[in-house]
Amino acid sequence: MVKVIMHGCNGRMGQVITGLMKEDKEAQIVAGIDIADNRENGYPVFTDIKKCDVEADVIIDFASAQAVDALLDFSLETRIPVVLCTTGLSEEQIEKVKAVSENVAVLKSANMSLGVNMLIKLLKEAANVLVPADFDIEIVEKHHNQKVDAPSGTALALADSINEALDNEYAYKYDRSQERKLRDKKEIGIHAVRGGTIVGEHEVIFAGADEVIEFKHTAYSKAIFGKGAIQAAKYLAGKNAGMYDMSNVIDGE
Amino acid sequence: MVKVIMHGCNGRMGQVITGLMKEDKEAQIVAGIDIADNRENGYPVFTDIKKCDVEADVIIDFASAQAVDALLDFSLETRIPVVLCTTGLSEEQIEKVKAVSENVAVLKSANMSLGVNMLIKLLKEAANVLVPADFDIEIVEKHHNQKVDAPSGTALALADSINEALDNEYAYKYDRSQERKLRDKKEIGIHAVRGGTIVGEHEVIFAGADEVIEFKHTAYSKAIFGKGAIQAAKYLAGKNAGMYDMSNVIDGE
Amino acid sequence: MVKVIMHGCNGRMGQVITGLMKEDKEAQIVAGIDIADNRENGYPVFTDIKKCDVEADVIIDFASAQAVDALLDFSLETRIPVVLCTTGLSEEQIEKVKAVSENVAVLKSANMSLGVNMLIKLLKEAANVLVPADFDIEIVEKHHNQKVDAPSGTALALADSINEALDNEYAYKYDRSQERKLRDKKEIGIHAVRGGTIVGEHEVIFAGADEVIEFKHTAYSKAIFGKGAIQAAKYLAGKNAGMYDMSNVIDGE
Amino acid sequence: MVKVIMHGCNGRMGQVITGLMKEDKEAQIVAGIDIADNRENGYPVFTDIKKCDVEADVIIDFASAQAVDALLDFSLETRIPVVLCTTGLSEEQIEKVKAVSENVAVLKSANMSLGVNMLIKLLKEAANVLVPADFDIEIVEKHHNQKVDAPSGTALALADSINEALDNEYAYKYDRSQERKLRDKKEIGIHAVRGGTIVGEHEVIFAGADEVIEFKHTAYSKAIFGKGAIQAAKYLAGKNAGMYDMSNVIDGE
Repeated sequence: MVKVIMHGCNGRMGQVITGLMKEDKEAQIVAGIDIADNRENGYPVFTDIKKCDVEADVIIDFASAQAVDALLDFSLETRIPVVLCTTGLSEEQIEKVKAVSENVAVLKSANMSLGVNMLIKLLKEAANVLVPADFDIEIVEKHHNQKVDAPSGTALALADSINEALDNEYAYKYDRSQERKLRDKKEIGIHAVRGGTIVGEHEVIFAGADEVIEFKHTAYSKAIFGKGAIQAAKYLAGKNAGMYDMSNVIDGE
Repeated sequence: MVKVIMHGCNGRMGQVITGLMKEDKEAQIVAGIDIADNRENGYPVFTDIKKCDVEADVIIDFASAQAVDALLDFSLETRIPVVLCTTGLSEEQIEKVKAVSENVAVLKSANMSLGVNMLIKLLKEAANVLVPADFDIEIVEKHHNQKVDAPSGTALALADSINEALDNEYAYKYDRSQERKLRDKKEIGIHAVRGGTIVGEHEVIFAGADEVIEFKHTAYSKAIFGKGAIQAAKYLAGKNAGMYDMSNVIDGE
Repeated sequence: MVKVIMHGCNGRMGQVITGLMKEDKEAQIVAGIDIADNRENGYPVFTDIKKCDVEADVIIDFASAQAVDALLDFSLETRIPVVLCTTGLSEEQIEKVKAVSENVAVLKSANMSLGVNMLIKLLKEAANVLVPADFDIEIVEKHHNQKVDAPSGTALALADSINEALDNEYAYKYDRSQERKLRDKKEIGIHAVRGGTIVGEHEVIFAGADEVIEFKHTAYSKAIFGKGAIQAAKYLAGKNAGMYDMSNVIDGE
Repeated sequence: MVKVIMHGCNGRMGQVITGLMKEDKEAQIVAGIDIADNRENGYPVFTDIKKCDVEADVIIDFASAQAVDALLDFSLETRIPVVLCTTGLSEEQIEKVKAVSENVAVLKSANMSLGVNMLIKLLKEAANVLVPADFDIEIVEKHHNQKVDAPSGTALALADSINEALDNEYAYKYDRSQERKLRDKKEIGIHAVRGGTIVGEHEVIFAGADEVIEFKHTAYSKAIFGKGAIQAAKYLAGKNAGMYDMSNVIDGE
């Protein structure tokens, strides 16, 4: 049984993971960390991470950027591997993550869904075959009307991953309405649809001569990110120091 | 049998219509008009419209904007109704079209496909029901990589038609990547995907709380515009003077 | 303020509606009816419908078929209109519904979502225009892997509604793998995809010569059926005796 | 310059390839073989394959099953590699193909499109990751109303390829309307939509808990099969004896 510390246990994703873990036969939460201890979680909650003395195999983090420094210190001291799901880290914090990973296993990904990460892997292969055969690439993402950033971080991660496979020669195009000109061969159009309560849809289009190939991921709830984090935690427990991401979990190496 | 004069008979769409008409049992081309008489069409071709003295019930026009003035003069003089498919008319020409329509039947639409025009009609009804129920509207159109204008004229026609049903209170949004802000309730996002040889796809998305309704039109060849023009011609033959569009053809009034 | 009795208030949909109503400014639940009174609903709950003496404008029903007879008796006696959402009624019960509707307003629909019902309306219009122009009709529905009936009741309602517009001359085709033969002009293919936790997707395809028109409805949660029931309740309050369905709610007559 | 013999040069696909090859800078047709020599192809056409004495690097075959025996004899005698695109071979002919491939390079695939074959490759990888994570697999294919077989050969090839990656433990399900039962974990639903003039669409759906991943291929014309055959011919020229398929062309080994 993999023993997990849930960092940010009383936030929304922390609660999702707490719920998912109740039925898990291979892993269980042995302690939680959060600012407030105001819920019935079925495990002890520490409001000060330094006071957490429960033995564990791995930490799952879904807290806030300002809590990340104390978390990294804790991980370094205890040598407990950490699945880092908090986004919006500063440059300084990202440096600190790298430094810590020299002594303990750290896993970090732009999107924690298994499905999205598998797609990222396949898209690289597709790009390598289809782009030499003259296919153009476009991405359409759809999210709810409360999302303020556009395009989504996941859409950018998909584009970056394809671009990397293409020697980073492609530019991203967000708007074609302001000029009359031919599509540039080396561009990836990225389109952000916003409306209703759409959880998250990402479609990557490869359009060639008389044929189109589409890869589409649809999320129906945020639970998929929690599930991915749990899979990552099971993978990371017992691993050597180093930086990992979801592609390692998929490859199972 | 409806007798048709094909204006611009040796251009691409003129040839498509010539082909389609060969198997038509209700209409036939009795004469063509074009700058050059360089093809075997099976009907007489006049290089000067003024010399065309063949008796006919209706004209189908798929020529160029500069040929439209002579065409309108001809229609006015002969009182032969005209299905006007040429786009890119000047303000002046559009005024002339209206003037001519006081004496002869003229049909003009942004898109000649029966399917697209039926969609335009249904979208108005949908908007009237769904927008009060708090649905957001977005349009995604896809075309080949040789198309220089964006968004497509048809995407704008779809948006305009919805907007009209909503008292023209909606603004069109082409790019969301330059700012971090909530989607405006009164906006319609319009996204232009470009790639490969895609003939033309238009998708209108109504996104509400926990439900999404999509209307999608896919064109597989330009023949559908020719077919729509033929249907319009059959409809217009024998009609009274006035301005018509494809919605009249659909309603069959 | 429309006063609502929630019949089946402690079931899943009853609880969904209870939640949605808390923020409603035009309607409120004044009493609930259920076998067990085991939840904090914020309104009185009667375990015997006969004892319910609360004044109300309309009843919303999401209970079980065996509770429908007592409900109809109650509605008939009190003359309170009823939105009947329970499915799987017997022939006998359906007859009773009709009889009751001669004295009190009753609303009943195969699917309570506003979006689906609007689609049903538009599909009839589309069929009337597209079928004479030689379009074929196919329906693909997708649901989770726990659904045992196929095709879905909503897919059949969509097909029936289209068929009605076409003089009921169309047969439904569920499998083409057992014979080598041309598609029959007068058939509607209906395909039931099952997988994962898909809440419900219905796509109606009109395929013609070189063009395809698709209408698609995607449900992201069962809350949309609750919302539709609330809209229906607001509509039905104060209406004369008779049988109503969701198309009346959409038309607002 | 790769020198190609076009077997079945005056058939539909033979003419498509003849057209495509005119602009090819790496390959050219040096001779054609067909029953009748009735077209202007710009290369010599032999009505008897035995009399063809033109030097060539590879043969592309898009003829008919009855012409395949003579073709294989010719290939064996001349040791010219052959891209075999004719379908519907008898068991006996398939045996002969294998025998011939011991002495000369032979390439044979269920579908000649580069895009479809790349998809086949990626689907195996996807199945290996997603099926252990409890995703269900379904396939929807769409073709024109003149197609008599269902499901399409390509849909079966996609299913077979996924099934192979899953130890061939999955059964194919074509109809769910005749019984009320839960979806079997080890089944792949295959649905054949027929309508209008749809050239060919294949969609593979992986549906899991709260997320769906779709892979979709759309063909806009049969030219893509000609293009794939030409790519295969360039690949096969100069190769050693053996059986090849499109996956070798993609891998470029």
